[in-house]
Amino acid sequence: MRLPELADIQAAHSRIKPFIHQTPVMSSQQLNGLFDCDLFFKCENFQKIGAFKFRGATNAVLSLTAEEKSKGVVTHSSGNHAAALALAARMNGVKANIVMPDNAPVVKKNAVIGYGAEITFCKPTLQAREETTRMIMEKTGATLVHPYDNFNVICGQGTAALELLQEKSDLAIVIAPIGGGGLMSGTSTCVKGINKGIQVIGAEPLNANDAYISFTTGKLTPSVNPLTVADGLLTSLSELTFSIIRRNVDKILTAKEDSIIDCMLLVWERMKIIIEPSSATVLAIIKENPDVFRGKKIGLIISGGNVDFRKLPF
Amino acid sequence: MRLPELADIQAAHSRIKPFIHQTPVMSSQQLNGLFDCDLFFKCENFQKIGAFKFRGATNAVLSLTAEEKSKGVVTHSSGNHAAALALAARMNGVKANIVMPDNAPVVKKNAVIGYGAEITFCKPTLQAREETTRMIMEKTGATLVHPYDNFNVICGQGTAALELLQEKSDLAIVIAPIGGGGLMSGTSTCVKGINKGIQVIGAEPLNANDAYISFTTGKLTPSVNPLTVADGLLTSLSELTFSIIRRNVDKILTAKEDSIIDCMLLVWERMKIIIEPSSATVLAIIKENPDVFRGKKIGLIISGGNVDFRKLPF
Repeated sequence: MRLPELADIQAAHSRIKPFIHQTPVMSSQQLNGLFDCDLFFKCENFQKIGAFKFRGATNAVLSLTAEEKSKGVVTHSSGNHAAALALAARMNGVKANIVMPDNAPVVKKNAVIGYGAEITFCKPTLQAREETTRMIMEKTGATLVHPYDNFNVICGQGTAALELLQEKSDLAIVIAPIGGGGLMSGTSTCVKGINKGIQVIGAEPLNANDAYISFTTGKLTPSVNPLTVADGLLTSLSELTFSIIRRNVDKILTAKEDSIIDCMLLVWERMKIIIEPSSATVLAIIKENPDVFRGKKIGLIISGGNVDFRKLPF
Repeated sequence: MRLPELADIQAAHSRIKPFIHQTPVMSSQQLNGLFDCDLFFKCENFQKIGAFKFRGATNAVLSLTAEEKSKGVVTHSSGNHAAALALAARMNGVKANIVMPDNAPVVKKNAVIGYGAEITFCKPTLQAREETTRMIMEKTGATLVHPYDNFNVICGQGTAALELLQEKSDLAIVIAPIGGGGLMSGTSTCVKGINKGIQVIGAEPLNANDAYISFTTGKLTPSVNPLTVADGLLTSLSELTFSIIRRNVDKILTAKEDSIIDCMLLVWERMKIIIEPSSATVLAIIKENPDVFRGKKIGLIISGGNVDFRKLPF
């Protein structure tokens, strides 16, 4: 199993650059004062489709052979990766089949339909998603672009950290959320490849703490029916992402649901930007662990801003 | 009655520049596609205190004499101007007294308290506000900084349009919302001073259409108990702002409540930024009048992003 290196992420960045937004790095004097540290938010909520996932999906589509492109792509996703693959495929004239749980947020379903992809609904279990996906692959010959258990996807996700460090090279810590581990795999590979002295910390909901348990016990432990407001972080690590995270991540911290919701509201109120609950997790671990972060320069990967405004948690 | 000129706005900009944020001009391919025009959003929701009002308040405070500064400032405001004057005063070591209606949004009350100003609550009528303000002026000798019926405030508000046109000089139309008319007075003076060929259009809620009526009849007509979700646009024009608007504004269009709410949600969903209902009015008139705007390059002044998230209109 080849693990990605910094050079792979740099190559991905050159490949996808004409297609993605270079998102802004924002800061807030009010939040810096509140948490007594210097926070630099890499705002992937402003990325196309409203999330970092467009980076990985685009890198995966651009890495296909001509023959693979002609047969299309397929994936299963709780939402943002689905929209990302749909748009990345359409921008490159490739057909996309999306397997999606029937309880996915309306805003995410609509996005996928808007990008012209075909949706196949299934039960909201990992098993149902994988079986439905396999069926489609057999029927059409489409290439699976897994949301995170995919080398090219991971390299694409790492490009957000690459841009962050190009803009702010003197960070002491970089934090990213952990769901399936794709973003954290790319982020940690990139950060450690550039500067081993920068601490890389993962943020996970306490109610979906499979990565925390896997990381501390050293044994890959999937989560069972996790219940958290951070709906982008329900998935569990794969062998690939677990291997990368074990090698590159310094620490994983968890956050309670209340902290996640408070921090989401705080960013909306003070920074006037929409972030989704999964993104608020990175700020919530700072709120819960002030001693770890006080006085530090910290980069935070804000993963996305796709929120169902009719179902707000506050 | 001396009306402000472009030179006054340029002087205000030099004065306030070290204190304000130069806010970004944002665009959205999705919204451009939806409305079939090129939209450039001047994002004063990212301004200090979350609204353009910080520009005018800062210009007013910096224009005080040393003796006036020692006696403090006072104002009555439904919210954003209150926070703006409170912060502008504190940044310059000046005491601020704020007269505020007792039904003002909690988020706006908290902001003013947070900036260290003193609040005096009153009934939510113009008369009650003005009487309470007069009382405080007599007691303390404080200078009134009216939210919009004030030369220096108007010049400060015009600096947002100045920055917009410095960044995008080839606009065909500039739209700003109209409440008391301070923002529109500054905006229209600036735009027409730079280029008479640019159309200046005011946006007003249909349910608070006093400026529309005043403008079309030529007779200053205050609104009576207006009821609109755009809580920053409840106030009526003054003699000063009416004179400026009659001279510089080409047209005023009104928007229905539904359109305002739809457009607010649209900007949240597609642009991932928080704008307040008053700001959504500028997009709502485009939605309601597609023939006026189709194919044009349009600058929109997004006035602010202070929203009470527990009382959302959708």
